[in-house]
Amino acid sequence: MDLDREAARGHDGFLERVAAMLREEGFTGRPDAGVPVVRFHHPDKLQELLQLDLGPAVADEEALLAAARAVVRHSVRTGHPHFHNQLFAAADPFGVAGAWITEALNTSQYTFEVAPSLMLVEHKVIQRALALAGFDGGDGIFTPGGSVSNMYGIVAARYQAFPQVKTEGMRALPPLAVFTSDDSHYSMTKGAHWLGLGTNAVVKVATGPDGRMLPDALRDAIAGARLAGVHPVMVNATVGTTVLGAVDPLGAIADVCEEAGVWLHVDACWGGSLLLSAKHRGALLGLARADSASWNPHKMLGAPLQCSVFMVRHGGGLLHRCNAAAAAYLFQQDKFYDVSWDTGDKSVQCGRKVDALKLWLMWKARGDAGLATLVEHAMESASYFRSRVRDAEGFRLVTDAQDCTNTCFWYIPARLRGRTEDEAWWQEVAKVAPAIKERLVLDGSLLVGYCPLPHKGLVNFFRMVVTCQPPARRQDMDFVLQEIRRHGEAV
Amino acid sequence: MDLDREAARGHDGFLERVAAMLREEGFTGRPDAGVPVVRFHHPDKLQELLQLDLGPAVADEEALLAAARAVVRHSVRTGHPHFHNQLFAAADPFGVAGAWITEALNTSQYTFEVAPSLMLVEHKVIQRALALAGFDGGDGIFTPGGSVSNMYGIVAARYQAFPQVKTEGMRALPPLAVFTSDDSHYSMTKGAHWLGLGTNAVVKVATGPDGRMLPDALRDAIAGARLAGVHPVMVNATVGTTVLGAVDPLGAIADVCEEAGVWLHVDACWGGSLLLSAKHRGALLGLARADSASWNPHKMLGAPLQCSVFMVRHGGGLLHRCNAAAAAYLFQQDKFYDVSWDTGDKSVQCGRKVDALKLWLMWKARGDAGLATLVEHAMESASYFRSRVRDAEGFRLVTDAQDCTNTCFWYIPARLRGRTEDEAWWQEVAKVAPAIKERLVLDGSLLVGYCPLPHKGLVNFFRMVVTCQPPARRQDMDFVLQEIRRHGEAV
Repeated sequence: MDLDREAARGHDGFLERVAAMLREEGFTGRPDAGVPVVRFHHPDKLQELLQLDLGPAVADEEALLAAARAVVRHSVRTGHPHFHNQLFAAADPFGVAGAWITEALNTSQYTFEVAPSLMLVEHKVIQRALALAGFDGGDGIFTPGGSVSNMYGIVAARYQAFPQVKTEGMRALPPLAVFTSDDSHYSMTKGAHWLGLGTNAVVKVATGPDGRMLPDALRDAIAGARLAGVHPVMVNATVGTTVLGAVDPLGAIADVCEEAGVWLHVDACWGGSLLLSAKHRGALLGLARADSASWNPHKMLGAPLQCSVFMVRHGGGLLHRCNAAAAAYLFQQDKFYDVSWDTGDKSVQCGRKVDALKLWLMWKARGDAGLATLVEHAMESASYFRSRVRDAEGFRLVTDAQDCTNTCFWYIPARLRGRTEDEAWWQEVAKVAPAIKERLVLDGSLLVGYCPLPHKGLVNFFRMVVTCQPPARRQDMDFVLQEIRRHGEAV
Repeated sequence: MDLDREAARGHDGFLERVAAMLREEGFTGRPDAGVPVVRFHHPDKLQELLQLDLGPAVADEEALLAAARAVVRHSVRTGHPHFHNQLFAAADPFGVAGAWITEALNTSQYTFEVAPSLMLVEHKVIQRALALAGFDGGDGIFTPGGSVSNMYGIVAARYQAFPQVKTEGMRALPPLAVFTSDDSHYSMTKGAHWLGLGTNAVVKVATGPDGRMLPDALRDAIAGARLAGVHPVMVNATVGTTVLGAVDPLGAIADVCEEAGVWLHVDACWGGSLLLSAKHRGALLGLARADSASWNPHKMLGAPLQCSVFMVRHGGGLLHRCNAAAAAYLFQQDKFYDVSWDTGDKSVQCGRKVDALKLWLMWKARGDAGLATLVEHAMESASYFRSRVRDAEGFRLVTDAQDCTNTCFWYIPARLRGRTEDEAWWQEVAKVAPAIKERLVLDGSLLVGYCPLPHKGLVNFFRMVVTCQPPARRQDMDFVLQEIRRHGEAV
């Protein structure tokens, strides 16, 4: 092994060859509806198609490119016009550009010393996010995703109520409860486990059939907890639930929280991008009264994964006091520059990936109005899709409410239509979506999710999602119905 | 705002122009020692030099490239041969290639459905990491960094001892203690806060002057905790402490843990890469007896940030049982493929960035022997540097032990040499490193860290770090002494 040769490898144009390969394979460039969304193989078969091995073998650039190309070819095209499977889809090309720059800069978002421009970039993006949320004068931080952002919310709420928790832990506190809707994301549950509250501390508040939290049920739940000697430490309201896309009534919930003196956190990971549109941000009225919020630009807006912001309305160094450990090797106070720019001690992490630059570049490229247009178009496309589902034979909406871009619906094959809708019938309907999904995946024509909502007594239905990237065309919306019908009549 | 125009933007060669810009600015391609490591400006001034604004303005591709170029130019060159400031430095170019592919694929590491190849890639890399650690048959997951990986360790240890913590929380448990050396990383403290143990639950175990944990002190600390009615839930041993780079004596610590029946977690975030070298992995003998471990390939090995692996020796689904929430919308059990490949429920996160592909590509490119060579060269370079420091006038080693690539030393300017080394003298020495550092930064010639170790009674000293990328040359090592001496005589 020659060290000089090893040191030289990979520097002369390899990155450019990788960029060219990605373009050839259609993973950069304009989305093309003419290729399959996925070329599915079962895991065992796929293992044979990829050159996965790691060991003594050394791959030259040709072999590496071939191995990378195989991985790429057998990846799902999340940027495809027919990918509607998750709460994210294509990455905004300006976001990808920001991500590539980030990777080349390879630094950590903790001190001005090693990330001078990037600390300013993060600061700028956070200031804009705070302004959108109505949290001017507040504070924020990029985190590795929505679940972690929501954990930041619980940690901040707990610390604000019981600062001794930082040193003394949960055993020094009364029993705590966190309130969240029964349609909210499971990160509350996972967070409650990790943070030592226990999942039983998560009180599920009832929602209406539209998936929105019922404020009266919340008021009762808080009162019930108090009666049981449990301290209500946080209410989590959701802007865009995972399945139905419901937006909880923030104003009414903020009233309940104020009345009860409880921290209000808003999980706007999915729906937070609506803030960018003057037309849609009205649905989030009341957010400015919340104490904290999470927003994932990597979802609806199309920032590359990961891009999540946690925000607190409270300035005054709360986030820093809550999380700081004041490590002397990293956050030296005798540096010669203004160390208030060393914001890394607000984080529970030490090294922290730079996630702000990609969003900054997207925002610069498109401006406020460009981002608003993309969000509004996503909402309009979802409305169009919903109206098509409403009118189409064999399709049935789960709820008619549309708060985000989710549309949930069953497909009822002709053989099941017009029958008595008893439990046996619903058990048959439950098998339809998985069966259609299997055919769609094997066909590679369309990816759309399905799930049940057991606590609502709802069996498997499709969840169609529209995001900002690529901007949806009507023919792509129509295609979803057409494909589901085609396979639905064959299952 | 024209939607079609907006949809088209950024797709036609913009990424390639960004790639070209990065090469022109020297952020890709072979490292060049002839440019400054940083062009430092204070935050206020830097704000003027960058076009940070986000708002109504729309930037065309030229303007975007210019804005991005300004960010890049005023970034620290972590890939520069004279960057020794952190426990990471240059990104391996094959790693950057893997990162660029990852960004273009834009998916989430949670289900085989949306990340088929990438689930197999992550699995492969984790299997290799487990084998290196001696954890064959165990389990693992990529996390957003070392602090989170270490939190996974505490969570797993706590769950193994008290599975009811998941539902009932910390109040249902006896008081817990976590043991870690007084030289260990602050993530233990931050983790103890977040996870509800409280920072007082972190028992700091004494280290010798070389920074290695004293096993007898650990045994006494565990016994003391038990006497006080506190349950010792985890011992954290460190392979490569943050400042001195010490490797705790894993064998002796494993003996103590076995004897006491306590979970042993090894924070090998920094030193874990030594496992790749047959020559150096002997220092980690005993790791195979640990219950869990963290390793950050983004540190010594040069994987782009973020790249961190958490591993448990225990298979049998522990990681899954501990962390799963079984969300019905994501981890459907009625899918048509083998859902044991949907490994995302092992994670505390939901959406999870793909961090495995970059390491996989590096490993394929270099093979086991290539990675070993790079690690061994880093260790040899550190030894060379240490021997130069040992012999050079005015330089004084903090400790002569070398477990990792850290070298900690004071520079004593001529005016302070030969004096009585009383407290006043040390207070003068304490000012030397920050003053030299300021000059180095303003000069842009060299970045090297400094810090005190107050619990050891040590005032500010330099911490020189060598990593695998770029492979260090002797002249770069010599340059560090030369620059510190040059500025040290002027302060």
